Amino acid sequence: MTDKLQNELRNEFQLERMVLFSDAVFAIAITLLVIEIKVPELSHEISERAVLRELGKLEPKFIGFIFSFFLIGMYWTIHHRLFGFLVDYTRKLLWLNLGFLFFIVLMPFSTAFYSEFSKPDTIQLITPLAFYVGNIWCIGIMNFILWGYIGNPKNNVGEGLPAPHFIQLARTRSLMVPVVFSLTIPVALFSPGIARFVPMLIPIVMKIIQRRFDNKLKRHKH
Amino acid sequence: MTDKLQNELRNEFQLERMVLFSDAVFAIAITLLVIEIKVPELSHEISERAVLRELGKLEPKFIGFIFSFFLIGMYWTIHHRLFGFLVDYTRKLLWLNLGFLFFIVLMPFSTAFYSEFSKPDTIQLITPLAFYVGNIWCIGIMNFILWGYIGNPKNNVGEGLPAPHFIQLARTRSLMVPVVFSLTIPVALFSPGIARFVPMLIPIVMKIIQRRFDNKLKRHKH
Amino acid sequence: MTDKLQNELRNEFQLERMVLFSDAVFAIAITLLVIEIKVPELSHEISERAVLRELGKLEPKFIGFIFSFFLIGMYWTIHHRLFGFLVDYTRKLLWLNLGFLFFIVLMPFSTAFYSEFSKPDTIQLITPLAFYVGNIWCIGIMNFILWGYIGNPKNNVGEGLPAPHFIQLARTRSLMVPVVFSLTIPVALFSPGIARFVPMLIPIVMKIIQRRFDNKLKRHKH
Amino acid sequence: MTDKLQNELRNEFQLERMVLFSDAVFAIAITLLVIEIKVPELSHEISERAVLRELGKLEPKFIGFIFSFFLIGMYWTIHHRLFGFLVDYTRKLLWLNLGFLFFIVLMPFSTAFYSEFSKPDTIQLITPLAFYVGNIWCIGIMNFILWGYIGNPKNNVGEGLPAPHFIQLARTRSLMVPVVFSLTIPVALFSPGIARFVPMLIPIVMKIIQRRFDNKLKRHKH
Repeated sequence: MTDKLQNELRNEFQLERMVLFSDAVFAIAITLLVIEIKVPELSHEISERAVLRELGKLEPKFIGFIFSFFLIGMYWTIHHRLFGFLVDYTRKLLWLNLGFLFFIVLMPFSTAFYSEFSKPDTIQLITPLAFYVGNIWCIGIMNFILWGYIGNPKNNVGEGLPAPHFIQLARTRSLMVPVVFSLTIPVALFSPGIARFVPMLIPIVMKIIQRRFDNKLKRHKH
Repeated sequence: MTDKLQNELRNEFQLERMVLFSDAVFAIAITLLVIEIKVPELSHEISERAVLRELGKLEPKFIGFIFSFFLIGMYWTIHHRLFGFLVDYTRKLLWLNLGFLFFIVLMPFSTAFYSEFSKPDTIQLITPLAFYVGNIWCIGIMNFILWGYIGNPKNNVGEGLPAPHFIQLARTRSLMVPVVFSLTIPVALFSPGIARFVPMLIPIVMKIIQRRFDNKLKRHKH
Repeated sequence: MTDKLQNELRNEFQLERMVLFSDAVFAIAITLLVIEIKVPELSHEISERAVLRELGKLEPKFIGFIFSFFLIGMYWTIHHRLFGFLVDYTRKLLWLNLGFLFFIVLMPFSTAFYSEFSKPDTIQLITPLAFYVGNIWCIGIMNFILWGYIGNPKNNVGEGLPAPHFIQLARTRSLMVPVVFSLTIPVALFSPGIARFVPMLIPIVMKIIQRRFDNKLKRHKH
Repeated sequence: MTDKLQNELRNEFQLERMVLFSDAVFAIAITLLVIEIKVPELSHEISERAVLRELGKLEPKFIGFIFSFFLIGMYWTIHHRLFGFLVDYTRKLLWLNLGFLFFIVLMPFSTAFYSEFSKPDTIQLITPLAFYVGNIWCIGIMNFILWGYIGNPKNNVGEGLPAPHFIQLARTRSLMVPVVFSLTIPVALFSPGIARFVPMLIPIVMKIIQRRFDNKLKRHKH
């Protein structure tokens, strides 16, 4: 193996290490979500009905788990695509990435906090919901910054980057998820039952943006 | 390093990243199983007999831990074999894989829930058992879908794939585990003590299918 | 890239995947040890003395944490060396490795169980200690089996393997750790205070075996 | 693939394994920090004000989480840079690295312990703070030793190492973080409120050292 090849491989490995470290953090955060769903304990009466009732009470926890799982999963796929352009890294990028991961790591707490006070039969408390939405905003903003940093040819870390206006689209798209989630707050003031289903709009909104994205890309090629 | 080689290596790395992310999720889910076995606490009397009695009460937890550990382990080996055919990936595959991982991540909860209400001396509650079996069904179905997606030459993600009727066999085999687990429910209605040992049939059933599989493969080669 | 090279790389990757999955399990098990040390909570009196007293009560937990951390670490280094010989894998090896990992994953529970009932001021309970020692025996035995499997040229999975009598030495060494740990049981019957320090013999015993090992290797080379 | 290339790749992989194992431990330790922030539970009165008050009580936990997250993150970036020089490893290096990781793994406990007794309205207890600072000292010292070991050309594990006086600078820098953290103890005796913000000096101090570092490097090049 020539020295130059070995050097390139080593630099490549340093890059991989940052990416795989991020993957491990994503994987742990996504898996820790489940330990916030505590198994119901029945002290008095152990019956089929009692267990079903307790399981029913866990409904908000399950909804929170599902949303956060696919949200973290979605940001992982975006991270996967974005970091696929990387050919080099800087000290600043390491720290921007750590900042992004910070808010991913916070998700199990935010999810548990939001789920704890999000019961179908009571008034929706705004504090836990706002905390959850705030966490998603922070993820979105960090993602926005990362796209900007990697997408900027001046920083010399990306290669084979898409055209500037596509990067701009990707950046605005990063903020669409928090925007949709923010809608849950006003809706929750009127009907907490409906508010819990607002995040379901995300895959639809993302699909629409994606399609527009792909269409633009096609027209551009022709 | 030529540009083409570098490009291929980068694409290879993107693929590896999806696989290693999945491995990390598997590894965490399989390890989190153990934190559901809580160390017994003795408040009144600390004696050898009391500790042994408390340890005995943990029996269902240990059985759940063992079954789920090897079940997740088995699905990991299947994932390992299946994703070994991959040479490319699509956005859809990323999401199908995330869906599969979702039900792997749910296993520590399902196991704990099932074990909590599966005591040898009481009537077996069907709800937690059905929840556990349901989780395994979801894993099996997602595995079935993944085999179908990767095994389909139209999707252009696999290479060196086995003949179509083998993929069909692999797909039906994915559903054999949930089928065997489903048997625990009717058995539990009569004898919860025996029901707990039904999953032990799985390695036997899997061995039988594997042998038939291998025989067919041999005959095919001749 | 030629097809043959690509094929070799893919097989290599499948091998790496098993190894990296094992590493992830090791890493999680070794890190989960710490969550069994619960932060003391003071309800009545919050003073420097009260905190120090509560911290002192955690002593057995810290000792358990330290021993288990370096024990898992040691088995990781052995796994690291052993799997460094691998050039291929079989379905059986995947399962033997999973069996080995099973007992690594059990360690956080065993450690917590043993530490919970290992207080300096009370009589040492044999059940938790025997459970802990039993867990270490299972790890040692699985390690013994893995050395035997990978070291056996018939299985065709290893390359550049050391001479048979060195493999034999490595196998017996796998069992030395549980043998030393077993000594804690009789010692604990007389003096629980001393028993807690018996595991400290392990690095010494390992060093002696290692030196004898290295000497034999040197003489062999001359 | 020639045998020599394959051998080099295998040795490279053994090296990578140690590095990726370390990354996994870092990733898990950094993520486990969040599970120490428990979701507040309201039993009596569920109101916006009550939730906000409970969230306010979590303030020290959040501060501890943020500091420890970026502290572990910073040591990860240092580990990343330092291990980037590695071309070989020794048994001793494996153990030094495990020793370093031991104190990284301890961080979630130390953070939780320190945060638990660090309330703005009470007198700062020195024991938990000293424990936290002590943990950071141990990380710093292990980092100091690792720089010394890898940086020493006699050990033959590094390549492309910077000049000896830069390694010396890197080593002293390893100890700057614990030195700054130690300042929190005397400050806490007078004003616990201010003490909590002392760690904020770290990025500033690190930046100053970094700049001096870079300047020296530039002058050296000219």
